[in-house]
Amino acid sequence: MDKLTLHEDPRSGNCYKIRLTAAMLGLPLERVQYDIVRGDTRTPDFLARVNANGRIPVLQVGEGDSARFLPESNAACWYLAEGSALVPGDRFARADMLRWMFFEQYSHEPNIATLRFWLYFIGEANLGEYQRSQLLPKRIAGEDALALMDRHLVTRDWFAGGAASLADIALYAYTHVAEAGGFALRDHAHVCAWLDRVAALPHYVAMD
Amino acid sequence: MDKLTLHEDPRSGNCYKIRLTAAMLGLPLERVQYDIVRGDTRTPDFLARVNANGRIPVLQVGEGDSARFLPESNAACWYLAEGSALVPGDRFARADMLRWMFFEQYSHEPNIATLRFWLYFIGEANLGEYQRSQLLPKRIAGEDALALMDRHLVTRDWFAGGAASLADIALYAYTHVAEAGGFALRDHAHVCAWLDRVAALPHYVAMD
Repeated sequence: MDKLTLHEDPRSGNCYKIRLTAAMLGLPLERVQYDIVRGDTRTPDFLARVNANGRIPVLQVGEGDSARFLPESNAACWYLAEGSALVPGDRFARADMLRWMFFEQYSHEPNIATLRFWLYFIGEANLGEYQRSQLLPKRIAGEDALALMDRHLVTRDWFAGGAASLADIALYAYTHVAEAGGFALRDHAHVCAWLDRVAALPHYVAMD
Repeated sequence: MDKLTLHEDPRSGNCYKIRLTAAMLGLPLERVQYDIVRGDTRTPDFLARVNANGRIPVLQVGEGDSARFLPESNAACWYLAEGSALVPGDRFARADMLRWMFFEQYSHEPNIATLRFWLYFIGEANLGEYQRSQLLPKRIAGEDALALMDRHLVTRDWFAGGAASLADIALYAYTHVAEAGGFALRDHAHVCAWLDRVAALPHYVAMD
């Protein structure tokens, strides 16, 4: 595989997903760090060269003129893991893994990750009026996402395909730090047991 | 492939993606229809049997006791199309296709589809206070998504891999009806030309 470089903010769970996937696969990953609060990913150079969407993470594959850039955390995880044991071999299970990864980006991250960012990194006192108006709806939607995960795990150890997969990595990233967003993980016993299973996987690395 | 049944609301672009993918692949799809405004997807039977998340679309694979249910529109499209010409053969291009599908669910659908649903199906006069507070942020974010797509298409006919793929189908679904959400597509000439290319693809079917 070409040289891999992760453009990241180490506080971001979306970036951590890619680091965790690479670690579990034994793939070396160079890291280039940005401060999203300071606006490092909105500079003209970043927008022109790395990601026109102004967001991290971006996985860079190759170097120099032949470098290619892959935004969207779950797409980057897929690129690294396709064909490995982290992607189920069965067609339905593979699609079911993607189902949980789309759930993560649609129903989980915009609520749980956003409240963590606002409350833990920005601080409630510094939020604007529009952000304040979203605290309760995001709290409810985030709780719904955790409750759905908890019900799914009543009869299963892993989200899709009967083994640890990218679905678990994607959902682990912001779930295991959800308390920084004001979510009470102890209310979700099956989620807590699953978090412990993920952290016990071979080659697991912790978030910075 | 086992019998395929789509649990859908025909007004939903997320459901249409799956119909369009199946049509382009020549796969027969039985359709079961629900009215999301009336709450058809929040009944105890739907939550227990079809999708605990209370959302459509859900792709049902097989029948009776062996039926399996796959929520999340883009995961269902992947299940149908994996191994076909709608998924690029190159590893990076395949991940890049998924990149645009995750972009669609994170940055496009929550803005463009939601404004279409609120303004066209619910009606602005019937919106609650919280929804009203979201009109402007969703307008700005939706315009940003269309502008990003337009820039990407300046030098390309298709979103990923140099040919029509699931990325185009996923983004087409709500882009081509974005004017019902108050977005001016004529401001995005490259997007308009691409919409015409998608509609000219073999076996294309229109939204109901």
